[in-house]
Amino acid sequence: MDYAGIFKDALNAVHREGRYRVFADLKRVRGSFPAAQHYNNGPEASRPITVWCSNDYLGMGQHPAVLAAMHEAIDTVGAGSGGTRNISGTTRYHVQLEQELADLHGKEAALLFTSAYVANDSTLSTLAQMLPGAVIFSDEKNHASMIAGIRHGRGPKRIWRHNDLEDLEAQLKQYDRATPKIIAFESVYSMDGHIAPIAEICDLADKYGALTYLDEVHAVGLYGPRGGGIAERDGVMDRVDIINGTLAKGFGVMGGYIAASRDCCDAIRSYAAGFIFTTSLAPTLAAGAVASIRHLKSSTIEREQLQQRASEVRGRLMAANVPVIPCPSHIVPVLVGDPVHCKAVTDALMTHYGIYAQPINYPTVPRGTERIRLTPSPVHTPEQIDHLVASLSALWQACPLAKGEYVRLAAE
Amino acid sequence: MDYAGIFKDALNAVHREGRYRVFADLKRVRGSFPAAQHYNNGPEASRPITVWCSNDYLGMGQHPAVLAAMHEAIDTVGAGSGGTRNISGTTRYHVQLEQELADLHGKEAALLFTSAYVANDSTLSTLAQMLPGAVIFSDEKNHASMIAGIRHGRGPKRIWRHNDLEDLEAQLKQYDRATPKIIAFESVYSMDGHIAPIAEICDLADKYGALTYLDEVHAVGLYGPRGGGIAERDGVMDRVDIINGTLAKGFGVMGGYIAASRDCCDAIRSYAAGFIFTTSLAPTLAAGAVASIRHLKSSTIEREQLQQRASEVRGRLMAANVPVIPCPSHIVPVLVGDPVHCKAVTDALMTHYGIYAQPINYPTVPRGTERIRLTPSPVHTPEQIDHLVASLSALWQACPLAKGEYVRLAAE
Ligand SMILES: Cc1ncc(COP(=O)(O)O)c(C=O)c1O
Ligand SMILES: Cc1ncc(COP(=O)(O)O)c(C=O)c1O
Repeated sequence: MDYAGIFKDALNAVHREGRYRVFADLKRVRGSFPAAQHYNNGPEASRPITVWCSNDYLGMGQHPAVLAAMHEAIDTVGAGSGGTRNISGTTRYHVQLEQELADLHGKEAALLFTSAYVANDSTLSTLAQMLPGAVIFSDEKNHASMIAGIRHGRGPKRIWRHNDLEDLEAQLKQYDRATPKIIAFESVYSMDGHIAPIAEICDLADKYGALTYLDEVHAVGLYGPRGGGIAERDGVMDRVDIINGTLAKGFGVMGGYIAASRDCCDAIRSYAAGFIFTTSLAPTLAAGAVASIRHLKSSTIEREQLQQRASEVRGRLMAANVPVIPCPSHIVPVLVGDPVHCKAVTDALMTHYGIYAQPINYPTVPRGTERIRLTPSPVHTPEQIDHLVASLSALWQACPLAKGEYVRLAAE
Repeated sequence: MDYAGIFKDALNAVHREGRYRVFADLKRVRGSFPAAQHYNNGPEASRPITVWCSNDYLGMGQHPAVLAAMHEAIDTVGAGSGGTRNISGTTRYHVQLEQELADLHGKEAALLFTSAYVANDSTLSTLAQMLPGAVIFSDEKNHASMIAGIRHGRGPKRIWRHNDLEDLEAQLKQYDRATPKIIAFESVYSMDGHIAPIAEICDLADKYGALTYLDEVHAVGLYGPRGGGIAERDGVMDRVDIINGTLAKGFGVMGGYIAASRDCCDAIRSYAAGFIFTTSLAPTLAAGAVASIRHLKSSTIEREQLQQRASEVRGRLMAANVPVIPCPSHIVPVLVGDPVHCKAVTDALMTHYGIYAQPINYPTVPRGTERIRLTPSPVHTPEQIDHLVASLSALWQACPLAKGEYVRLAAE
């Protein structure tokens, strides 16, 4: 067996499609993020750049209260937790964080995981096994981590058209009330910026007797009076059975969770392998997350500025004829539609303008919809926004690829 | 559908079996770990205890060089990475850490994951999909995370008897050379303390044309002249194709990885959903891990003390007729054999002696082999060891459950 040849072939396939990923080697400048240093030409030849594709949406990753809490935890208890949650890996910080999260979402309990990926994967697969015969109704644009959890649960699943209530109802209708059902969806879809009609989905869940499972990963901290997400903004948190979120985006740290009834969290806690058999979050991360969540429960300025910056960037790019995909959230996707051209455009942005926006290719988005995904934030200055708009307009005017002529070129 | 009732039933089943898990709410005392405060009677009523079940085997979680590196990273770049590895989440610290790990294992490359659980799950499932028809030969005592990866890969698998070369060969023999094969096993089995015959397994891999996948989670940092694990100690690192390790046990921080050929790591990097679609490790964790690995590459005193403490504890407990399961590694398992009694014994240790050792129950070990798992370390003082030995002997003399009379009781 030529194992080396097989790995080589797998890599060649990615190269051939032009979607081989080169990671940008960065060092953020704490205190002046989105400023960062870019090291891809070697550790001795770094260049200053501006990050325009971070999911640290509110800049909480450099908030003094968050950093102080992290330092304090390291000084008090040390580096790692040293164990799984059950075997010496539960600390005061974990317990406090779970209480804070339950309160954030108005639920009885919350359960921490090492990431929201693991939270989705573990919870959905465990639910499917705990509810034998349960049919999972999954929005077609659901994140890879939900797809993984649904696959790993090995139960029946139905894919419904993205945010399409009619299609969802048509599919729910096909099962009788005694069949357990789970509707799995997101609030903010991160690659398109769409927002789900949560209340209407909950209406259907009530009508057909389904559990609702909502991924608020791109919304927690960002929406709602206390940062509880779109469900909080829409006043429907109590209608969603299980809310999933991350500590790594709006809250600026790392880790993931679910919030739900006490028994639901306790059952997942007791059965989910991805929760049980892994070292718990480092205490410093739990401490930083507590500080971040507490801050965003009372401070609204970050959320207001986020929306203001996002609509400014979106409006100005549209006015400059840059092909922004319209959406109602804080995300500003710009369509390119080809992996090779997408990379060429973002390389030009980095090289000529010091602007870092990673090309977004398959499998993160469907082939043919490759894009640049911009994430304006409260920490982007007016000058940085001017520079972004000027750079993208210049590029889009000068470059046939960016202007969409690739469509013609590709067809030739 | 009565979803609440189903969660309740699932919990009742765990309660009925006596294996409902109550997490110990702890706060380690940095600088004097294994000392910690125990908060289960409420945040205002903490008690000092000694931790005897941590997997921070060398006390690196409080090593000054590790903590300094973590503080420095927070001050330099902030809290979270703000993105997946591909989308703004690769930092200097991640790049350095992967280089450090490749060097540790004498491999061309290494690839970081958020945990060793995720590393096992993602790598094994991706390998199975990348090598169609591959048969995975899995040691029957493999960890839950390897079992998850093998299941999720959906390829054929064969379970071989624990550390049994004859059985492994008998099973390998049944497939012709053209069938791709992966032998998946651990070096130190953490619940029994057994050590695998790595060289002999590699001989079989050569003979039958198999890839070798070795989980060194409970060995990295602890064995080998530079802490490369049992494969380093045995001089066979170059014969193992893929080595998996954690940053959360011997290294005292959090995170996991594989080390392998450049193309193998690159292929997993390019295809594994559990790697691609999740926020990267917080930079502070990567920085702390780099410091820990570097320290343990040159310092051997921690490894020597670990072995000395482990054999002292083992020898003295055996002399006191406490039923230690013999093994050649640093782990000291004490057999109880029943979940209810196991919890009764550890509760007594905590309440009467201030000794924290979590009861180990199903699904972590097979039913009927419930145990107390002690992990002596260089940071346990002679006085703490004396106290442990005296407490366990006293308990074992006084308590019929501990003495094994549960066997008789259970049979009645
Ligand atoms: C053998 C083995 N592999 C993998 C893991 C997972 O490691 P991590 O805690 O980094 O997820 C563990 C325990 O946690 C383990 O015991
Ligand atoms: C919708 C969605 N869910 C879950 C995740 C996983 O979150 P985490 O980074 O905490 O693993 C992501 C992205 O990372 C996401 O976009």
